[in-house]
Amino acid sequence: MAAAPPPRSAEQRRRDTLHRLEHDVDAWVATADARTGTPYLVPLSYLWNGDTLLIATASASATARNLLAGGTLRLGLGPTRDVVLIEATAEALSVADISADEGDTFAAKTGFDPRELGTAYHYFRIRPRRVQAWRESNELPGRELFRDGVWRES
Amino acid sequence: MAAAPPPRSAEQRRRDTLHRLEHDVDAWVATADARTGTPYLVPLSYLWNGDTLLIATASASATARNLLAGGTLRLGLGPTRDVVLIEATAEALSVADISADEGDTFAAKTGFDPRELGTAYHYFRIRPRRVQAWRESNELPGRELFRDGVWRES
Repeated sequence: MAAAPPPRSAEQRRRDTLHRLEHDVDAWVATADARTGTPYLVPLSYLWNGDTLLIATASASATARNLLAGGTLRLGLGPTRDVVLIEATAEALSVADISADEGDTFAAKTGFDPRELGTAYHYFRIRPRRVQAWRESNELPGRELFRDGVWRES
Repeated sequence: MAAAPPPRSAEQRRRDTLHRLEHDVDAWVATADARTGTPYLVPLSYLWNGDTLLIATASASATARNLLAGGTLRLGLGPTRDVVLIEATAEALSVADISADEGDTFAAKTGFDPRELGTAYHYFRIRPRRVQAWRESNELPGRELFRDGVWRES
């Protein structure tokens, strides 16, 4: 196996993380049923607005049911050797809660428009509490980049 | 956006899924704390043996703690537009439970050997109960390929 390149600086990881949040289309979204502890995982498209991610899923889906019951979620972005992992909270929004502009931007980015679908959908505004990023195991030290609103400086 | 290719047959999806299980190195592993319902998600390397996946993680990690407390897990393989999603159960194994052969094969495939590390590790044997695979939304119908030991035929 080729040796991994040297670990990136915190500043480089932050830049790479924000670039990925801006340009990727999908994230792995992990939630759980708070009553039974059953985990759920599914890829969903998102819109990044600089501070939060917006996702949408059918109101009857396991992800929506888990998030509507409250609690946290975890998102994974990127391939498994260049990951961004996000611990976050979710705010549920009905289709009527979304401005026309934001709904249009979401549809343009993700390629689907929950406002036009026959089944009931919820949007969820996802606020990161903690962000980690690493490529190979030599980047596990220093993987925490962001916590409770503050980016780590070094 | 380019139109998606026509959906694959069940047989093609099964072949692609088994090929991915054999050749990929990492999976997204989603577990949850059964007491608090807190979801956890992390990429881990695995070894596929034809029926089950073998993973290993530090005994103190959230994944190990969640799986040692029992319960199910969900695994995601592949990029988000060519996913294999697995609902599974996990059997905990101590390092002493693994045969020398299986331990060697695991180390060769994943590039790390829990038997040689200073911290305590557990292996987990992951048995799929349900397997789904899809690329784009036109493959959502028919995404369930395997359930309770049986591959769907068409």
